Amino acid sequence: MAADPDLTPGVGDLDATERLMTSLLCVHTGGAAKAALEHLRSGGKRLRAKVGLHSAACLGLPVGTARAIAAASELIHNASLIHDDIQDRSPMRRGEATLWARYGHDIAICAGDLMISAAYAALTHATLTQATGQHLGALVARLHLRVCDVVSGQSHDLAARENPVETQLEYRRIAAGKSAPLLGLPIELALIAADRADALDRAEAAAGAFAVAYQMADDIEDADTDIATGQMNIISVMARHVSLDAARVMTRALIVRDYQLACDLARSLPSGCGALMADLAEEYLRRAAPQSIPA
Amino acid sequence: MAADPDLTPGVGDLDATERLMTSLLCVHTGGAAKAALEHLRSGGKRLRAKVGLHSAACLGLPVGTARAIAAASELIHNASLIHDDIQDRSPMRRGEATLWARYGHDIAICAGDLMISAAYAALTHATLTQATGQHLGALVARLHLRVCDVVSGQSHDLAARENPVETQLEYRRIAAGKSAPLLGLPIELALIAADRADALDRAEAAAGAFAVAYQMADDIEDADTDIATGQMNIISVMARHVSLDAARVMTRALIVRDYQLACDLARSLPSGCGALMADLAEEYLRRAAPQSIPA
Repeated sequence: MAADPDLTPGVGDLDATERLMTSLLCVHTGGAAKAALEHLRSGGKRLRAKVGLHSAACLGLPVGTARAIAAASELIHNASLIHDDIQDRSPMRRGEATLWARYGHDIAICAGDLMISAAYAALTHATLTQATGQHLGALVARLHLRVCDVVSGQSHDLAARENPVETQLEYRRIAAGKSAPLLGLPIELALIAADRADALDRAEAAAGAFAVAYQMADDIEDADTDIATGQMNIISVMARHVSLDAARVMTRALIVRDYQLACDLARSLPSGCGALMADLAEEYLRRAAPQSIPA
Repeated sequence: MAADPDLTPGVGDLDATERLMTSLLCVHTGGAAKAALEHLRSGGKRLRAKVGLHSAACLGLPVGTARAIAAASELIHNASLIHDDIQDRSPMRRGEATLWARYGHDIAICAGDLMISAAYAALTHATLTQATGQHLGALVARLHLRVCDVVSGQSHDLAARENPVETQLEYRRIAAGKSAPLLGLPIELALIAADRADALDRAEAAAGAFAVAYQMADDIEDADTDIATGQMNIISVMARHVSLDAARVMTRALIVRDYQLACDLARSLPSGCGALMADLAEEYLRRAAPQSIPA
């Protein structure tokens, strides 16, 4: 985690972010809002909130802006989980029945819609400055860009169920599309609010490499099941050309390369604002390929 | 329609609004975006876009702001239609198969999500002024308030399928919740952008009365079917206490009252910005209860 303890988000900041999220769900309004709140309370690591708070603190942003960025990133991520669970027919998440499994598709659709909307409303809680008009517009535009990416990724993922993925390039596009856009989002929003749009491309590339490495590491774990059920898996893609064993070795090499790339790119971001993502990339690299780390 | 032809939105304004909506759907990104665009192209009266363009023009707003308001209102309305059609299992809309019926629930969920997001992105296209930071924040906050209302209305509507509506008050809440929030939205956004937040309450009340009258008029048409299938209908609610014939007479009186209220409130809005809604209320009143209009 971040070396400077002052830059690590405090429990107070996370609590305040949580309160902001709750207030934006207009909980008095009915079943969908209650379901959305229940989903939030069911847990989750709040990784995107922590990254947002940390990046904003590194870049010297006001605490109100930090919370707005953290809440927006976390709300849109959780909205995507709720709708993804419907689309993937996933019955369980965080050790509990998913929202659609408990309340049906209709309420789960509404709950996700509410959280997408609340993510945008969260951005208006950024502390006002002279240049806020321009900033708020740029923050909203960035959030929309990332929602477009997620919808695009999900569309390609849905299409891949019908037509098996054949190339590594296609695999990377779908794997990155599934999680990179919202993983990089909190850092990107902080960079925009801090007038450091010049570093957005690096933040995007870091999140892309991280997301692909993460998915490939996950795929190695699930390879046998995925191959049996015909799910997209990097091992099956590679095994079109080489043996299963060789596919595993090559995938491990790719995971190392991508986590290292993510780490280097994240470390290169201004004022250490990518430190949390870089630390996490190192930690996951250690887990996924322990032999790659010098003792 | 508006008496002053200069205040009636031109074809050019509507075309530009249409282009803005299309550009915000990031159409190159895949199946969901294509489906969203197909839904838009399938028609619709663009009532909310017209009301937005008209209100903005009346209030002297820049043309960019007018289009932003019109596009945001139309996008969020169409998003709600796409998700409602899934929830209501409606197979047809505008004489064509609904999006979910053509492409399945998964793509239809993504298409609606994309359009919710695009509605917020549309607001950033409001022409920048000194006070834009504050304005944009207020516009985003208002859009979120109305999304909360719609989600709440839909939640209550879903709940009403299990527990029949028993009181007129409850009926009004659900009937208003279904369409009032997005009907009033374009006028409300124009009022906020024009620094006339003092008139927001009247705009909201006008939209509420309009929406309830509209739903009751629709209910009179569908009464026999709704009563047979157990759907919510004002006639069944009234008929708990009086005969079916009396329920029809009383409902007609309520329709007249609510359309007239909507008309009066809309006419009272600043700079004639509610004229289009008032004209529409008069037109619908004429259709629903011709005997109530002096020859």
